[in-house]
Amino acid sequence: MVPGDDLGGMLGEAAAAAGARPGDVLVVAHKVVSKAEGRIVRLTEVVPGPAARALAVETGKDPRLVEVILGETRRVLRRRGGTIVCETRQGFVCANAGVDASNAPEGTVILLPRDADASARRLQAALARRVGGRVGLVVSDTHGRAFRRGLVNVAIGVAGFRPLVDHRGGVDRSGRTLVATEQALADELAGAAGMLMGKDAGLPAVLACGVPTQPGPGSVGELLRDPAHDLFREGGQMVGA
Amino acid sequence: MVPGDDLGGMLGEAAAAAGARPGDVLVVAHKVVSKAEGRIVRLTEVVPGPAARALAVETGKDPRLVEVILGETRRVLRRRGGTIVCETRQGFVCANAGVDASNAPEGTVILLPRDADASARRLQAALARRVGGRVGLVVSDTHGRAFRRGLVNVAIGVAGFRPLVDHRGGVDRSGRTLVATEQALADELAGAAGMLMGKDAGLPAVLACGVPTQPGPGSVGELLRDPAHDLFREGGQMVGA
Repeated sequence: MVPGDDLGGMLGEAAAAAGARPGDVLVVAHKVVSKAEGRIVRLTEVVPGPAARALAVETGKDPRLVEVILGETRRVLRRRGGTIVCETRQGFVCANAGVDASNAPEGTVILLPRDADASARRLQAALARRVGGRVGLVVSDTHGRAFRRGLVNVAIGVAGFRPLVDHRGGVDRSGRTLVATEQALADELAGAAGMLMGKDAGLPAVLACGVPTQPGPGSVGELLRDPAHDLFREGGQMVGA
Repeated sequence: MVPGDDLGGMLGEAAAAAGARPGDVLVVAHKVVSKAEGRIVRLTEVVPGPAARALAVETGKDPRLVEVILGETRRVLRRRGGTIVCETRQGFVCANAGVDASNAPEGTVILLPRDADASARRLQAALARRVGGRVGLVVSDTHGRAFRRGLVNVAIGVAGFRPLVDHRGGVDRSGRTLVATEQALADELAGAAGMLMGKDAGLPAVLACGVPTQPGPGSVGELLRDPAHDLFREGGQMVGA
């Protein structure tokens, strides 16, 4: 995958060949999206500023890598040892603002798509044309979590269905009204695809069939908690504009 | 499902009928496990103590429900409005220590299994006997998360496979050594099952076929971050013994 490749066309062909039908959801690893969008930075072309140099000393990372990370970061939430947990400009909380060297060409790092919802919408439109109906689209990345070890694949861009399913006001099987039950379906879909993508399987997309979804434009924003309502985000340090 | 029912036998029959084969993983919603284990509390039989009464006033909850919640709690991490985020005695971070009234008989609440790993091991042994080989077992619950909206189904008990897959030291497709990539496979499996369980589908178990797993005794403990290494757990209040 190189910048300018018609990823939507390729995924549409592959999904059609796999028998995709309206209502299915395609989960696409962000890395292939980022590559097609040219979100690759060559470290030799990066000049680290003072903030990056200071944080590089603290974390033992390459100052040029830290410069790239800070460029993607709204707020550094935590740092300890070599770990930098960032709130990205899109609002994701993840290590290194999603900047990653694995599966990147030598000497480069790969960034998250600038607007993964927009990426998802573009790919979703290409798929819908090819398949002849609504196919949901999730752009995914693997993130760590508070409280639990291990990475899980989660949604960072969504199009064509509602990522958050609202069960509130419904009734359970005893006839009791359900409260506070919103299901992060797009994240569960991403996790399911993540099982099959593995880390080195080289499988950039997984088609999920038979999962009931609700039509809607969709946006990963529905899955991001407003920082003002987040009970665990306090602290951290804003990154200068 | 009532206390004493042979859940392992029933799940073994159902899994065999569904064509379960060695290497598959059965994800079982904890609620059916809790019911079979009698982890049900009748609120009329609960006498709330002073701590529960105070927290009930603060949160607007039934003081008897809060008493049950505190009985399951090692530490109250956060509270705001009607929300109580607990670290349970098993080490899970979740709302209300997993105590839940939905799909519970009238006037009762359902607790998490006392030791969901032990529950998983018992069910796993029954399944392995019936299927004639290793079938992985995940006991799951739906939990909220820091930073993201919506509940996702996660593992709270594991048996028969390694819940955390260690990709460290492996190489990516460019031949570069992978660092810091442990995959929380059991949580991704639980999430995949959660898509199909929904909240009111009444589907207590989902069989996952074709997911590569590594043999091992397994324990959800592998997925729980040591609080001392957790960057987001600080604060909170211990619950008296």
